[in-house]
Amino acid sequence: MKKVGNQSYFMSKPINILSTACIVGPKEKDGPLNAYFDQCLEDEFWGENSWEKAESKIIKETVNTAIAKSKIASSSIDFVFAGDLLNQCISSSFGLRESNIPFFGIFGACSTFGEALTLGSMTIDGDFATNVVCAASSHFCSAEKQFRFPLELGNQRAPSSQWTVTGSGAAVLSKDGEGPYVTAITPGKIVDMGIKDANNMGAAMAGAAQDTLLCHFKDTGRNPSYYDAIFTGDLGHVGKDILIDLMETKGYNIKANYNDCGVLIFDKEQQDTHSGGSGCGCSASVFCGYISHMFKEGKYKKVLLMPTGALMNSTTSQQGESIPGIAHAVAIEATCPNL
Amino acid sequence: MKKVGNQSYFMSKPINILSTACIVGPKEKDGPLNAYFDQCLEDEFWGENSWEKAESKIIKETVNTAIAKSKIASSSIDFVFAGDLLNQCISSSFGLRESNIPFFGIFGACSTFGEALTLGSMTIDGDFATNVVCAASSHFCSAEKQFRFPLELGNQRAPSSQWTVTGSGAAVLSKDGEGPYVTAITPGKIVDMGIKDANNMGAAMAGAAQDTLLCHFKDTGRNPSYYDAIFTGDLGHVGKDILIDLMETKGYNIKANYNDCGVLIFDKEQQDTHSGGSGCGCSASVFCGYISHMFKEGKYKKVLLMPTGALMNSTTSQQGESIPGIAHAVAIEATCPNL
Repeated sequence: MKKVGNQSYFMSKPINILSTACIVGPKEKDGPLNAYFDQCLEDEFWGENSWEKAESKIIKETVNTAIAKSKIASSSIDFVFAGDLLNQCISSSFGLRESNIPFFGIFGACSTFGEALTLGSMTIDGDFATNVVCAASSHFCSAEKQFRFPLELGNQRAPSSQWTVTGSGAAVLSKDGEGPYVTAITPGKIVDMGIKDANNMGAAMAGAAQDTLLCHFKDTGRNPSYYDAIFTGDLGHVGKDILIDLMETKGYNIKANYNDCGVLIFDKEQQDTHSGGSGCGCSASVFCGYISHMFKEGKYKKVLLMPTGALMNSTTSQQGESIPGIAHAVAIEATCPNL
Repeated sequence: MKKVGNQSYFMSKPINILSTACIVGPKEKDGPLNAYFDQCLEDEFWGENSWEKAESKIIKETVNTAIAKSKIASSSIDFVFAGDLLNQCISSSFGLRESNIPFFGIFGACSTFGEALTLGSMTIDGDFATNVVCAASSHFCSAEKQFRFPLELGNQRAPSSQWTVTGSGAAVLSKDGEGPYVTAITPGKIVDMGIKDANNMGAAMAGAAQDTLLCHFKDTGRNPSYYDAIFTGDLGHVGKDILIDLMETKGYNIKANYNDCGVLIFDKEQQDTHSGGSGCGCSASVFCGYISHMFKEGKYKKVLLMPTGALMNSTTSQQGESIPGIAHAVAIEATCPNL
């Protein structure tokens, strides 16, 4: 590892992304990224009798699929890093309770998959692990029930509101393999822009995304053009536009190669998803499906993935608090320039 | 780092515990460990208008106190690892949103402080960090409100139930210093014993504690007598007795030097706390107060701290689920035998 600047790190070992897997729900199946998911469910229950149990099953089967694709024995995996949006991260802990792998529960709201890749990469680079699993999940119905209103209410949604992705993504990281590789990380700080509108998460998280992105560029000496593509997690249409503007005020034009996983996963016009997708499963499934596929096809060689999270709950909103955000940047490249 | 056995690691660098701090509530003040806390609050609000905001203030001030005692500039701290019991870990993210330090939110229920020490130690040993802060908090009132019943109900408590500690503990880990040191870690797996009684967390977590403890002894070749003292996080009186029995069935007698932070923090007879203390703040404040003090006085030279967590929420109990547990073991020694 080589620390550069204030808070970025180049890996000193190849952190190979050996396999990825993603399982998503029916609405994601109807979206533009349909072709890239390993499995699409026909309904939100998947044979379970609650949304929470369905979400646990989704992350469990996603992790199992990623491990199967990696051809690594489950007993050779040193750690799992996993988290989700449900209270006390129950999707991850119940879904993975039979995995028999040392477990680190993490919570970074919708930045969780970025946090998992960051911590997983550090444990491999630091020689603590040979293979790790990084996973995150979310579920539209369990999230609506918990954060907003009963689904049965048919509540109206604000134009800036986002649609929680039902889905999970999991990646097996390993010392061995032929790439793509995690080559650099910029773990994020909490940034609170003072936004209090829980129906405008994109705006609330944009400041954190800017903070981490600026830091990544300054620390590494890279420019936006270094990457074939830059992806935030789930700023959605509203937050994406804000981030472009915020970066412009600092002299960075990211328009050419920047997009957001929440913008990509749904068709705004056809699917009535307003500002786009959100949830831990958003960046996780888009990375493990679409982005990984582009690497395999050689269409991407350098990507910056930056999952974004809004660190709030319904109580904090009811108590008049603003919404702090966080973003963790992970550079993924087909080769390892810094090794 | 040297991996030993299946899931234990000896550190290859000194992971120095540079400072610790703990702030607790009024009931903890009245308990037997009163003399060891940095600060005891007169009431559960600390001038805030909600329990959640009070808990955020407690972890914030605890972290600030630990950093001040370490004499390290806040800008020289590479990461914070922190978590709590509140939905979406809001105590940590709101409490630490102004810290301006890269932040990793973690969730291990009441094992969170053990998870923080484990991950923090790995990032220092792996050269990613020079200094990290590890912190956890809980609050009796915010936890009761969220997990059980409104406090105003004056609900009756089962004999096996535990009393969530109002308090926080924080430790600054550093490459530099004169000890005590984190010398070994055994990250735990999720273990589900099939216990469904949410008023008997000690029983639910005892299996995970046994699993990690057995693993630690087998991996490291150490016996219980290697340590001056072994502490679980919050098994309480009920879980403590179960763990002693479970270990005995495997040929380990831990009676002589084993205790539980939840047993120590309250006076069972005088304070009406039934099976004892619990919560992320339990092992965190007992370690950062009492146990650290014993190291300073030279009374302890080798301690195994093993915070324990019950990975459930109120929805999982209502849906008839059992309660999975987890425990992370951290060996702390006055010197570094393995360096």
